[in-house]
Amino acid sequence: MEDSHDHTGVLDAVMERVRSHIGEGRVADYIPELAGVDPDEFGFAMATVDGDLYSVGDHARTRFSMQSITKVFTLALVMHGHSGSDVWKRVHREPSGNAFNSLHQLEFENGVPRNPMINPGALIVTDQLLSDTGDSAGALQDLLCAETGDPGLHADNLVAESETRSGDRNRALAYLMASFGTIRNPVPEVLDHYFRQCSITISCEELARAGLFLARRGRRSDGSELLSPSDARRILAVMLTCGTYDAAGEFAYRVGLPCKSGVGGGILAVVPGVCTVAAWGPGLDEKGNSVTAALALEAFTDVTGCSVF
Amino acid sequence: MEDSHDHTGVLDAVMERVRSHIGEGRVADYIPELAGVDPDEFGFAMATVDGDLYSVGDHARTRFSMQSITKVFTLALVMHGHSGSDVWKRVHREPSGNAFNSLHQLEFENGVPRNPMINPGALIVTDQLLSDTGDSAGALQDLLCAETGDPGLHADNLVAESETRSGDRNRALAYLMASFGTIRNPVPEVLDHYFRQCSITISCEELARAGLFLARRGRRSDGSELLSPSDARRILAVMLTCGTYDAAGEFAYRVGLPCKSGVGGGILAVVPGVCTVAAWGPGLDEKGNSVTAALALEAFTDVTGCSVF
Amino acid sequence: MEDSHDHTGVLDAVMERVRSHIGEGRVADYIPELAGVDPDEFGFAMATVDGDLYSVGDHARTRFSMQSITKVFTLALVMHGHSGSDVWKRVHREPSGNAFNSLHQLEFENGVPRNPMINPGALIVTDQLLSDTGDSAGALQDLLCAETGDPGLHADNLVAESETRSGDRNRALAYLMASFGTIRNPVPEVLDHYFRQCSITISCEELARAGLFLARRGRRSDGSELLSPSDARRILAVMLTCGTYDAAGEFAYRVGLPCKSGVGGGILAVVPGVCTVAAWGPGLDEKGNSVTAALALEAFTDVTGCSVF
Amino acid sequence: MEDSHDHTGVLDAVMERVRSHIGEGRVADYIPELAGVDPDEFGFAMATVDGDLYSVGDHARTRFSMQSITKVFTLALVMHGHSGSDVWKRVHREPSGNAFNSLHQLEFENGVPRNPMINPGALIVTDQLLSDTGDSAGALQDLLCAETGDPGLHADNLVAESETRSGDRNRALAYLMASFGTIRNPVPEVLDHYFRQCSITISCEELARAGLFLARRGRRSDGSELLSPSDARRILAVMLTCGTYDAAGEFAYRVGLPCKSGVGGGILAVVPGVCTVAAWGPGLDEKGNSVTAALALEAFTDVTGCSVF
Repeated sequence: MEDSHDHTGVLDAVMERVRSHIGEGRVADYIPELAGVDPDEFGFAMATVDGDLYSVGDHARTRFSMQSITKVFTLALVMHGHSGSDVWKRVHREPSGNAFNSLHQLEFENGVPRNPMINPGALIVTDQLLSDTGDSAGALQDLLCAETGDPGLHADNLVAESETRSGDRNRALAYLMASFGTIRNPVPEVLDHYFRQCSITISCEELARAGLFLARRGRRSDGSELLSPSDARRILAVMLTCGTYDAAGEFAYRVGLPCKSGVGGGILAVVPGVCTVAAWGPGLDEKGNSVTAALALEAFTDVTGCSVF
Repeated sequence: MEDSHDHTGVLDAVMERVRSHIGEGRVADYIPELAGVDPDEFGFAMATVDGDLYSVGDHARTRFSMQSITKVFTLALVMHGHSGSDVWKRVHREPSGNAFNSLHQLEFENGVPRNPMINPGALIVTDQLLSDTGDSAGALQDLLCAETGDPGLHADNLVAESETRSGDRNRALAYLMASFGTIRNPVPEVLDHYFRQCSITISCEELARAGLFLARRGRRSDGSELLSPSDARRILAVMLTCGTYDAAGEFAYRVGLPCKSGVGGGILAVVPGVCTVAAWGPGLDEKGNSVTAALALEAFTDVTGCSVF
Repeated sequence: MEDSHDHTGVLDAVMERVRSHIGEGRVADYIPELAGVDPDEFGFAMATVDGDLYSVGDHARTRFSMQSITKVFTLALVMHGHSGSDVWKRVHREPSGNAFNSLHQLEFENGVPRNPMINPGALIVTDQLLSDTGDSAGALQDLLCAETGDPGLHADNLVAESETRSGDRNRALAYLMASFGTIRNPVPEVLDHYFRQCSITISCEELARAGLFLARRGRRSDGSELLSPSDARRILAVMLTCGTYDAAGEFAYRVGLPCKSGVGGGILAVVPGVCTVAAWGPGLDEKGNSVTAALALEAFTDVTGCSVF
Repeated sequence: MEDSHDHTGVLDAVMERVRSHIGEGRVADYIPELAGVDPDEFGFAMATVDGDLYSVGDHARTRFSMQSITKVFTLALVMHGHSGSDVWKRVHREPSGNAFNSLHQLEFENGVPRNPMINPGALIVTDQLLSDTGDSAGALQDLLCAETGDPGLHADNLVAESETRSGDRNRALAYLMASFGTIRNPVPEVLDHYFRQCSITISCEELARAGLFLARRGRRSDGSELLSPSDARRILAVMLTCGTYDAAGEFAYRVGLPCKSGVGGGILAVVPGVCTVAAWGPGLDEKGNSVTAALALEAFTDVTGCSVF
C-alpha cells in the first residue's frame, strides 16, 4: 500500500463499493448444507506482513466454508514436502478455459489436470499429500491452526457429509483419473480427505492471517520456511492465472492480484511482500466467484494501487 | 438367404475369408481376466427362423465373454417392460461419433447418453431394468437361458471380479450421470449388475439362438412376444446405426446388417425375418471390434447377398 | 411394397398423416432466398423400379431447392469415376454425432470429414468431382437432367447468389480443410460449384425418378451402370447412417429406410430393389429435417412395411 | 531492478543462460518465408523508463518478424480510440486453454474469441481498428515508427505475401466469425491488414523501445497518453494471463512478467514502472514460444528479482 492511503480509507472505500450490492448473486446450492447461509453477510480483512490486522463488515469474524480456497494451502504443503518438484509431473499449471469441475479436458489430456486450482488438480494434490503425510486433511488443519493461532479450526461435519452425499461429480473426476492411473490412493479415501478439507470453516480475519506466508515469501508465522521465496512466487503465479475458475483473466484485469476463490463465497488475495486480503460474501456470480468479495477486492486495488501490474 | 446358396457354401466361404487372418488383432487387455484368451480361436454360427442351426470353426461351441453384446438383450428386456416407451426419455438413439466409453459428449449433453449401445447408455438401461425387475443381471440371465435352452448360462465370476477391479472408467461414467440425476439407483448397485451382465459367457451357437427373437420380429423361442414387430425393427435400427462403437458406418458399408459387437470378440448380426449370425474371434481392431468376426460377416453378406440394403 | 397395399392406400395414408401438420416447422432462413417459400406447400411422390410413378399433395410437381440432397448424387458421380475407391481416403463414412456444418470435429480429425453427407464431406466430394470432370456442377446437372428426362433442370441463380452471400460458414469449413491440405482445388472455385449444386431446383416427382438408380442397384434409366450393385448398396448404407444430419438414428428408428434430406425441405428415401420416395415440405425441425416429409416417410413405411429392418 | 544488480550483470547472466541453447527449437515453417531464418541468431535488449537502453547478443539490432507481438500494439490502439470500452463486448479476456489458432472454442462460444492475444481475438481487434481508423496496418506502423523513432519500420512484403498464401487457417477463423456476425468489415480486407501487421520487422532494441508505453503506465515517448494508467495495467494483465499462447501459466510460473510472444521468435516482456525487455531467437518450442528468448527472460527475472509476484 502506498503511504498516502491509511487503512481506514481503504476499509471505508471497500464498504462503500460493496454496500449496495450486498445480497446479490446466488448462494451455492449444489451442496445443500451451504444453501442455508444468509446471503446478506459480508466481511473483509487485511493482514500485513508487519503483523497488523484490519477488518470491516459485520461478518469479518464469522466463519464460512473455505471450499476451494483450501487448494492453495494443500498445494503449499505438497510443494513444501519431499514431493515438491514431483507434483508438477502429475498436474500442469495452465489455465483450463473451462469450469472448475469439467471432465472433457481431463479426458482429452489423459487424466492429467490442467492446474491444481481446479477440482481434478486439487484431487491429485490431495492424493499426493495423502501419500506424503498419511493424513492430508489433518496436515491442512494443522497448518491452518498454526498460522491463525487458533487450535480450534476444523471441518464442519454437516457440510462434509453434505459434500459426500452430493459429491458425484467429484467422484466422476476421481474415477476418470483413476482409470488413467493418475490417482494413486484408493478413490474413496482421497475423496474423503478432499471433502473434509473443503468443509473447514474460517473467518476473513483468520483467512487473511492464514495466507500471510504467501505475502511473506514463504515464511510461516513462526519464521520457519514453508516455501522457498521462488516457490512462494510460483504459487502466486498459479493463483493469478488459475485461481478464480474460468474468470482468471477477468480478475487479473479488474483486480490485478493473485486470488483464490471458493464457492463458500470467500476470496483470498495476496499483495506480494505487503499483505493479504480476505473477503467474503455468500452470493456467487455465474462463474462461481463471490459478487461482493470481488467488488471489495476491486475497490481495494483501486484505492491502494496495489495491483501487481 | 437366396435359394441358390446352401448353407455349406456359406460356411466354406466364411472360413476361406477368415483363415489367413486368425490371430490378427489385439486381445482386449483392459480387463485383465480377458487378456488370457487364446487369440487363435474362431467360431461362427447361423440360426434360421425355421429352426436350423449351422456352424463352422473349431470354437463355435466355445464360450466367450458377451461383454457389450448384452446391451441388445437388456434393451429388449426394458422395451418389453412397462417402461418400454419411457426408456427413450432417458437415452437418445443417435450415433455418438465417439468411443464407447467417452465422457465428454455425456458432459455436454447433461448426462443423457447418445444411445443404449455405448457404455453410458447401457448403464441407464441397466438402471431402468433394475428398477423394473429388482434384478437386472438375473433378468438377463433368465432370458438367455430360456432362448438358448441351456439353463446353465451364467456370468464368469473371475471376469466379473476383474471388471469390478478395473472398472474405474465405467464408475466415472456412472457418477457423472448420477451428478446430472440421470442414474436413479445407487451407482455401486447399477455397476454391480452391469459388470455381471457383461461377464456372461456364451458360445456362437448359443448366441445365434439367443438372438433369434430379433430375426423373428420379436417372438421368443416359445412363441410368446418379447417385442412388438415394430419394436423389434427399431432395435435393429439402433444396432445398425450404433451397434459397433465408432465403426457403425464402416459396418453398414461393409456388412450391411444390424450388428452388435463386444470386446470379448463376439459379434451378433441379424438378417431380419431370416436368420441370425454369430461370429467370434478374440483379436480386436483399433475400434474394438473383432477382426475375424467382422471378416466372417463380410463374407457372409457377400456370398448370400443378405444385406438389408 | 407388399401386395396387399396398392398405391392408392399408401398415398391416402401419407396425406392423412401429414394433413394436420402442414405449416409446422420453421422454413430455413439462413439462406435469405429460401426464407420466402410458402410453408404450407407439400408434395409426395414414389417411383418404382418397374417404371410407375405415383404422387399426392398439391405440390408434388412444384420445384424446390435440392440443397443437401445433391450430396448423394455427387457422391455417386465420384464413385462412378476413376477416383471411386480413392474418395474414401479423403472422407470417412462414420456418423458425425454433430450438426451438418460443425467445425470442431473437423479440426480434431485433421481436416478429414466424418462422412460425405455433411457439408465438409460434400465439399471434399465436390473438390474431387471438380478434379475428375473439370465441371462438378455441370456433371451433376447432366446426371439429373438425364435421369429425370427433363433437360431443363438447373440451378436457381437467385438462390445460388444468396448462398454465396451467406456462405461464410461453408467458407470457414473449406479454408479449414485447405489449411490441412485436404482440399486441393482453389477454395473459391470449389465453393462456387458447391453453391450452384445446392441451388438446383427439382420437384418430388423428378427427385423420385432421379434417385431410381439407387433402387435399381446402380442402373441408370437408360440401363447403363452408374454404380456397381455393391457400390449402390454402400451408398444406401451411408445414407442410412449419415443422411439426415444429426438425426440419422432417429430416422433409422422411425422410418427404417436410407434417406437424404436437405434444408430446402425435401427428403429422398430408397426402398432397395423396389422404389424411391420423395417428400417435400418447407418447415424444418430443429435438426434441419422437414417435419411433413419425415411424417410422410413414416406413414409410408408403416403402411407398406417397407423398412429395411 | 534491485540496486545490487547493474545492467552488465544482467546481460552477462542472460548470455550465460542462453549460450548453450542457441540453435535449439524449431524455426516456424508454416509461413515459408520465415523458415529461412538462421536458427543460431539471438538478441536481447532492455529499455528503462528513464531512457536507458542496454543490449546483448550478436543480433540485438537484427530485425525479425513481429508476428503476434503486434497483437499488444493493435489492442493498445483500439483501447486508445473511442471504441476502447466497446472492444471488450466483442472479445473476452480469459485464457483459452487451447492453441492460438484453434477453432472449436470459437465455434462453441458463438464466434466471440476468448481473448485478444490469440488469432481470432486479434482479427476482431484488427476489424475494430480498421473501423476506427480506416487503416489498421497503417495505424500500427505509425505507432511503431513514432515510439522507436525510426520512420522506416515497415512490413516485409515477402513475408506478408507468404502469410497470405499460407493463411487458410486464419481465413477459416475469420469466416467462422463472419458467419456468427462477429466480424464486421469484409473478411479479405481484415485479413489483408492482419497479415501486413504480422509481417512488420523489428529488432530487439526497437521492440524494447516500442513497448515502453506499457512500462510507463500508458505514456508514449513524447509524453502524451496512449492509455490511461488503469488501461495500461489491464493490458499487462491480459498479457500475463493470455500472452504466450497455451503456455501462459508456464510463463507466469517461470518468468513472472507480462509477456507477448510471436512465432517469429520474439518475446516482449514488461516490468511495470521500470523497464521493458525484448528477446529474440528463431527456434520455437512446441507451444510456439522461442526457446532462447524464454530462457533469457527467466534469467532476467532470476537475477533481477523483477517478477511481478
